[in-house]
Amino acid sequence: MPSLTHLDDAGKASMVDISDKTPCLREAVATGRILLLPETLRLIQENGLKKGDVLAVARIAAIQAAKQTQHLIPLCHQIPLSKVAVDFDLQAQAVHITATVKTTAATGVEMEALTAVSIAALTIYDMCKAVDKTMQITDIGLLSKTKTPLP
Amino acid sequence: MPSLTHLDDAGKASMVDISDKTPCLREAVATGRILLLPETLRLIQENGLKKGDVLAVARIAAIQAAKQTQHLIPLCHQIPLSKVAVDFDLQAQAVHITATVKTTAATGVEMEALTAVSIAALTIYDMCKAVDKTMQITDIGLLSKTKTPLP
Amino acid sequence: MPSLTHLDDAGKASMVDISDKTPCLREAVATGRILLLPETLRLIQENGLKKGDVLAVARIAAIQAAKQTQHLIPLCHQIPLSKVAVDFDLQAQAVHITATVKTTAATGVEMEALTAVSIAALTIYDMCKAVDKTMQITDIGLLSKTKTPLP
Amino acid sequence: MPSLTHLDDAGKASMVDISDKTPCLREAVATGRILLLPETLRLIQENGLKKGDVLAVARIAAIQAAKQTQHLIPLCHQIPLSKVAVDFDLQAQAVHITATVKTTAATGVEMEALTAVSIAALTIYDMCKAVDKTMQITDIGLLSKTKTPLP
Amino acid sequence: MPSLTHLDDAGKASMVDISDKTPCLREAVATGRILLLPETLRLIQENGLKKGDVLAVARIAAIQAAKQTQHLIPLCHQIPLSKVAVDFDLQAQAVHITATVKTTAATGVEMEALTAVSIAALTIYDMCKAVDKTMQITDIGLLSKTKTPLP
Amino acid sequence: MPSLTHLDDAGKASMVDISDKTPCLREAVATGRILLLPETLRLIQENGLKKGDVLAVARIAAIQAAKQTQHLIPLCHQIPLSKVAVDFDLQAQAVHITATVKTTAATGVEMEALTAVSIAALTIYDMCKAVDKTMQITDIGLLSKTKTPLP
Repeated sequence: MPSLTHLDDAGKASMVDISDKTPCLREAVATGRILLLPETLRLIQENGLKKGDVLAVARIAAIQAAKQTQHLIPLCHQIPLSKVAVDFDLQAQAVHITATVKTTAATGVEMEALTAVSIAALTIYDMCKAVDKTMQITDIGLLSKTKTPLP
Repeated sequence: MPSLTHLDDAGKASMVDISDKTPCLREAVATGRILLLPETLRLIQENGLKKGDVLAVARIAAIQAAKQTQHLIPLCHQIPLSKVAVDFDLQAQAVHITATVKTTAATGVEMEALTAVSIAALTIYDMCKAVDKTMQITDIGLLSKTKTPLP
Repeated sequence: MPSLTHLDDAGKASMVDISDKTPCLREAVATGRILLLPETLRLIQENGLKKGDVLAVARIAAIQAAKQTQHLIPLCHQIPLSKVAVDFDLQAQAVHITATVKTTAATGVEMEALTAVSIAALTIYDMCKAVDKTMQITDIGLLSKTKTPLP
Repeated sequence: MPSLTHLDDAGKASMVDISDKTPCLREAVATGRILLLPETLRLIQENGLKKGDVLAVARIAAIQAAKQTQHLIPLCHQIPLSKVAVDFDLQAQAVHITATVKTTAATGVEMEALTAVSIAALTIYDMCKAVDKTMQITDIGLLSKTKTPLP
Repeated sequence: MPSLTHLDDAGKASMVDISDKTPCLREAVATGRILLLPETLRLIQENGLKKGDVLAVARIAAIQAAKQTQHLIPLCHQIPLSKVAVDFDLQAQAVHITATVKTTAATGVEMEALTAVSIAALTIYDMCKAVDKTMQITDIGLLSKTKTPLP
Repeated sequence: MPSLTHLDDAGKASMVDISDKTPCLREAVATGRILLLPETLRLIQENGLKKGDVLAVARIAAIQAAKQTQHLIPLCHQIPLSKVAVDFDLQAQAVHITATVKTTAATGVEMEALTAVSIAALTIYDMCKAVDKTMQITDIGLLSKTKTPLP
């Protein structure tokens, strides 16, 4: 029967022991969307054509948050990330966000990728909240997760 | 014509000047949901009947993240929060999350409430990811925002 | 009947609402001790006569930790400290630590003073652990706490 | 003659060089106590029978602090922790705290275990300080420390 | 005779008491330069014409660092910043950096402005270090500092 | 033709992938200077003969900042430092600062050494700013950088 791995037999939280796990190359890709008014998207895009600051700020916030995951999500391990990349796709009524994170470690990086997507969305929300009262952050989930033995 | 407040005329990001704004009592309430399998909800609930740790961990992570908002969202101001409360409602296929944040300050706290909801959802995701590969974080938005002059 | 203030009626943790409390001048003094071998005390003292680094490092660590209290103790409020001072008294078999913290705020600073004492003790422990396997940190408590209305 | 390892020949502090040390499996166990009134213990316990929040909050704070040790204790190295567990034992007039920390690294984790115990005690103090003015944190020390060569 | 304000009569460091000081509107402007090869400047500029990321990243890093000053400079107070703006001027062989910081507080913000300039310069260094081995950060100082009584 | 490594083909920032790089022993040495009035130097030196706090505080701030580099410089990787040492040389009109940082990692530590020098200089500035309005931080650069294959 499945049980929650971060809780011991008495139901108490702990950072689970990974000292027996073998380090491998690991990659996780997470995605999410922030729904916006077309007018807001137009403002982001025009700014993008000039200086790109809205999405550039969101990208940097996301990369920095990925490196802070172990302090934000209490039971996450400290994992040295070997790559973090964040991409934005401007759709009809949304910015679609994709975060790709890599590591060589004994445990995976899906929480780092999901945290990057969440903070990117919140940063876009912050920068657009004066002009758009309808925004919603939605569909945050894991797209893929891979594990490759070290050569 | 509306424009993005965090960008100056040249399109460059800055932390906007709030030195002329008057401090008031401010409250923001944000909500969001994490979709889970019924079996996962049952595990959270049983744990809740015993020790409550899954939701207790998520609640603490959310409260701490609210206090870190200014370091996570690059252009947010440092705001001293006078209250943070996080509630969970277990629904048929989701945990519904509500965060209420109060301050006495010159600018609002919706980003703090939204950050609390996001980190609560990510923490639940982290603790359940070994037993549920279908989770999604969704419908994160602002429920209300009020401003009351100081007495 | 007394109850725990950080828990609501359902027993759930929250950062308690201080928005109705009036800011005053507040001071808290906390103390504690780290028990050491006389030989270890001699090494600290000799170093102190030269460069003072062991106690200087512990003092700085304590001051910085006081400013981090809201991120270390989950339900503490963010309080701007107007003064932090840390003193050491070398006794026969212990270093006695005193931390004094002041603020103008709506809630007190005893946790900030107690955190400063604890981190000072841990820093001394860290710097002496190679030469002393007997150390113990003890008697950490609040010496005084005062509150003065603003003029 | 013994000397303080974190000070060079001129008495100046530095983060000591561990680049020649071989990584091993390392574990440290630290303990401590917070002395409380029987009435306070009863409140913690009743809450524990309901929702467990006082000790759950203290446990999460301790786990997060263990991962922050390198930023709290100035000369500590950054060590990736493979496990952190925190246990509480309710005694007649005290909560007894035990923290167990594991790593695979070139230096030990006793400071991480001691920091976890200290922050757990401070968090209990914070949540009970409105109902108990007699609390004291005491007897914080190292219980054991082991080192196993990597297989 | 002048003396160092952060040291008490015994020469010990402390966070100086500002509880008697009156809050005013305060502004500080700091500047600095990073010397670069003309070829490196050309790369920054071309990127700037496209997406602006090098300077956008440096600007965000500087704004975030300003808000972290109290944790980076041990004896600085925690000051809520009401504005942070960072400007870059591309000169013949240097990027000239200007940071403007405002607050309503009992003590000034020159350290916040100087920290913003320093971290902006370090971030440019980081992003250009693969193509330019000659960079130097120089002439970091305070341009102006003003204080206006509250209305 | 050289290009900026932290930007992809579309000019967007990312944390560059280092998962194919082989860990080696790496060392970086950075230097810088803070220009001061002779009178200020005399005050630092006298304090140094007594308790050494100005330079001791700056040294600790620099060591702690080196360990925070990945959170200050957005695109830096998280690197476990095996040694950090900071030295000061009091010259006629300046304090000369040298920081030496070592690691065993897949990427270098020059940013950590440069960050340590910068924060040391800013900390000296902070502690002397009440007595010296002429200070300037200057000539921050890399002195050497070496890489040795692991045995």
